[in-house]
Amino acid sequence: MAERRGFTLGEIAEALGGRVDGDASRVVSAVAPLDTAGPGDIAFVADGRYAAAARSSRAGALLVPEDLPSLSVPLVRCRALRPALARLVALLHPPATWSAGVAATAVIAPGARIDPTAAIGALAVVEAGAVVGAGARVYPLVYVGPGAEIGEGTVLHPHVVVGAAVSIGRRVVVHAGAVLGADGFGFAHDGTAYRKIPQVGRVVIEDDVEIGANATVDRAMLGETRIRRGAKIDNLVMVAHNVEIGEDTVIAAQAGIAGSSRIGARVLLGGQAGIADHVTIGDGARLGAQCGVASDVPPAAAMLGSYARPLTEFQRIWVAEGRLPELLRRVRALERRLDGLESPGRERAARSGDER
Amino acid sequence: MAERRGFTLGEIAEALGGRVDGDASRVVSAVAPLDTAGPGDIAFVADGRYAAAARSSRAGALLVPEDLPSLSVPLVRCRALRPALARLVALLHPPATWSAGVAATAVIAPGARIDPTAAIGALAVVEAGAVVGAGARVYPLVYVGPGAEIGEGTVLHPHVVVGAAVSIGRRVVVHAGAVLGADGFGFAHDGTAYRKIPQVGRVVIEDDVEIGANATVDRAMLGETRIRRGAKIDNLVMVAHNVEIGEDTVIAAQAGIAGSSRIGARVLLGGQAGIADHVTIGDGARLGAQCGVASDVPPAAAMLGSYARPLTEFQRIWVAEGRLPELLRRVRALERRLDGLESPGRERAARSGDER
Amino acid sequence: MAERRGFTLGEIAEALGGRVDGDASRVVSAVAPLDTAGPGDIAFVADGRYAAAARSSRAGALLVPEDLPSLSVPLVRCRALRPALARLVALLHPPATWSAGVAATAVIAPGARIDPTAAIGALAVVEAGAVVGAGARVYPLVYVGPGAEIGEGTVLHPHVVVGAAVSIGRRVVVHAGAVLGADGFGFAHDGTAYRKIPQVGRVVIEDDVEIGANATVDRAMLGETRIRRGAKIDNLVMVAHNVEIGEDTVIAAQAGIAGSSRIGARVLLGGQAGIADHVTIGDGARLGAQCGVASDVPPAAAMLGSYARPLTEFQRIWVAEGRLPELLRRVRALERRLDGLESPGRERAARSGDER
Repeated sequence: MAERRGFTLGEIAEALGGRVDGDASRVVSAVAPLDTAGPGDIAFVADGRYAAAARSSRAGALLVPEDLPSLSVPLVRCRALRPALARLVALLHPPATWSAGVAATAVIAPGARIDPTAAIGALAVVEAGAVVGAGARVYPLVYVGPGAEIGEGTVLHPHVVVGAAVSIGRRVVVHAGAVLGADGFGFAHDGTAYRKIPQVGRVVIEDDVEIGANATVDRAMLGETRIRRGAKIDNLVMVAHNVEIGEDTVIAAQAGIAGSSRIGARVLLGGQAGIADHVTIGDGARLGAQCGVASDVPPAAAMLGSYARPLTEFQRIWVAEGRLPELLRRVRALERRLDGLESPGRERAARSGDER
Repeated sequence: MAERRGFTLGEIAEALGGRVDGDASRVVSAVAPLDTAGPGDIAFVADGRYAAAARSSRAGALLVPEDLPSLSVPLVRCRALRPALARLVALLHPPATWSAGVAATAVIAPGARIDPTAAIGALAVVEAGAVVGAGARVYPLVYVGPGAEIGEGTVLHPHVVVGAAVSIGRRVVVHAGAVLGADGFGFAHDGTAYRKIPQVGRVVIEDDVEIGANATVDRAMLGETRIRRGAKIDNLVMVAHNVEIGEDTVIAAQAGIAGSSRIGARVLLGGQAGIADHVTIGDGARLGAQCGVASDVPPAAAMLGSYARPLTEFQRIWVAEGRLPELLRRVRALERRLDGLESPGRERAARSGDER
Repeated sequence: MAERRGFTLGEIAEALGGRVDGDASRVVSAVAPLDTAGPGDIAFVADGRYAAAARSSRAGALLVPEDLPSLSVPLVRCRALRPALARLVALLHPPATWSAGVAATAVIAPGARIDPTAAIGALAVVEAGAVVGAGARVYPLVYVGPGAEIGEGTVLHPHVVVGAAVSIGRRVVVHAGAVLGADGFGFAHDGTAYRKIPQVGRVVIEDDVEIGANATVDRAMLGETRIRRGAKIDNLVMVAHNVEIGEDTVIAAQAGIAGSSRIGARVLLGGQAGIADHVTIGDGARLGAQCGVASDVPPAAAMLGSYARPLTEFQRIWVAEGRLPELLRRVRALERRLDGLESPGRERAARSGDER
């Protein structure tokens, strides 16, 4: 690897829109975790809970929120820590560059259009009619189907499959092994067996979307499956045919969305959550990990459980369930006491052998 | 793309076994969703709930069930709508054809047998002893292991992996990234560490099966993992070693079936459902989304929940759970009232500080 | 396939550290399931429950636990059946051998170091700076990223993706389609949109780990994601950034572990289980299938449910839930009886129309 360039804390604070508390001329060349950082590294402290770890860290500098007390090591203070962290890592760890051009071993069908500033890796396949935009990067062993469109600056990691009739916007990142545009799961039983309903619709991935490793986004039966601008989808997520996912929605790993459901904008969908088919999820809803949603959810609602309930209700019930065995005993006791009141003297006899 | 051929409604009705209600000479050339269809398209109306959308659609014609009231646009009426829709889409959107033959960049080991009518795509690998049947299509970048068998007319989409000792029947569709024949998950702890139990059994996929993108079907430890004729398996499903899946069973996305379990015929397994190992699921059972089944299920049973219960019981309990916090309060109130009856005047004192 | 070598039961007993009960000179050449084994096969009987199946089996010999009663067929008796079975299958079904060397169609970047005893399959890609150790096997269509390290004797099955900055130890098995080293899922909202937090950490897979088909292990944001010696991970599992998995821990299919969580040693994690982020799971914990764990779990604890509870508590609650609808009725009855006691004669009137 090439020698990494160092930055002074002054340069870093300027790039991050923060300010230095301490020696602004100190040079760091890498971001590292608090516990392993050395004198040439800058680490970050998300909040006061990590103060002890910060004090014992060997880091040469720390990125901290504005209100953290001073420490013996120089600090770069920023108002919004996480966006600053994003900029810091990008500054000190810029992605590897690559050269434009088509690898000799890539297989490009006649009629595919590859922008001269795009990079196509070894053993990638680009089929007829496909279009790869400016500055796009297609890693080795990727498959781009006939007629597929890859927008400017989009990155397809190794082994991604982009089916026919998939359109991907600009600055999209698709991680290794993701499959975009496989057939939706549609069958009709004709009385004898299942007959496949051909899936002939499209997939549209808008700008600035990120899709995780081994995730799958199926093509629509008719019409389109659409993932709107800025949505972030984690590994092993399933997006079925004709689903629509709103802008800036975040979907954690292994969640699944069944056919024709519409997820609004800025929704948070937890890991392993499931959305049934033909459901509408309102903007800004928060659906917790492993929840199962089978009916519409209003905007900004928070839901949890399978089948899902409003979050606070779920929590109350979860706590109450813990007392359910005790509750059974208490009800049985009440019944006996009441028997005693109603028929004094016969209580014990009547209840002997009670198995309830 | 080639110009699509148009069909008259008369031709369509004949192909579908339906009848035209309106101008049978009208020509349509594509199937489209109700809301985006234009005059050259035919849309479909599943049932009366979509009547308003149908009236406002610009579609040139509509495929409808027999009993739908007439509309101003010509209709093709069919008894069973979904099988008719399957035929309609296949008629107007026939799959792209491909040429037989082996791509120059495919790597075919000596001793592999490829039927001359099969098509092997770019950069596919077919190992020694593998057999690819008539009319089969192996897409680019597919791996067919040593000794694997691919039946007539079967389609392996890009990046499919077919391991050694996998046998796939006729007209099977395997979507991109699916892995058939990886090792089952079998280890024995010898007191020091886990020792791998070699997985040397087979995978048998019978005719007319469909397997979704990035799904995995493991080879048996001994014997075989078998997916019977006509079963349909969605994306990201896990089928473990020595599992057997019955005819025409449908398994939705992200469901998982642990080792040696036997799923009957015509079972419906919902998304993200899980079946434990060594369980038998009877024919025609319906196991809902996210359910967890750890013991045998009789034929035709409907189950839901984790761990699963009979569906109606699950529903009753789910509703009752919503009243559980209230129930706790009511039982507490009962206890106080009963205290009052049993020991008049001491109720309040006895219960002060009660935290139950 | 080459003719399989036969072994006498005497040879087998010696290799397994067991003893023969019957004719030690009998020769078998394959391990087979009880119900399909023939005279040339040896089958195994895990315990007495399979005694009837054993008596009706046509197997030429049986591997059995020490205490199983004698049968008419020769037996090989071993103390620990499952480790013995592992050795037996390895003995009779040794893995196919392969030749060292780099396939002509593999694409090896200048600066990659391939041990001369390693085997690189057709159409595999090994990027610059990558190191492949002695006796390693890289199957066709594998991608090994720049700087990645593949240890001695490690096997990467077809379509595996090993990203940059992934280090894999010795004797590791990675099954087809698994993705190691994709970006962790980290974004910071800067008030306008999500900004990617670059993921620049590593993945470290220690010796003797096994990773299932289409599983994903993300690289750390900073620092490392680490899977310790001997851990076994099944298909379609998700291991997020900065997770640490302890030695000899076993994770069943489709389980997911969110960012920065630490799973101890010898943990058992059931299928489809989910662990939230920043959680610590103690050594030897057993987390059941489909459970959802959102807070720390002490060593050796057994948990079940979503959200998880101690196993015995979960079981008691699950049983009690089955009586919840009945409990509601009983509480209603108690309320009526108590009304009757408190206000004789008014009970029926007061409660008429009660829907509670």
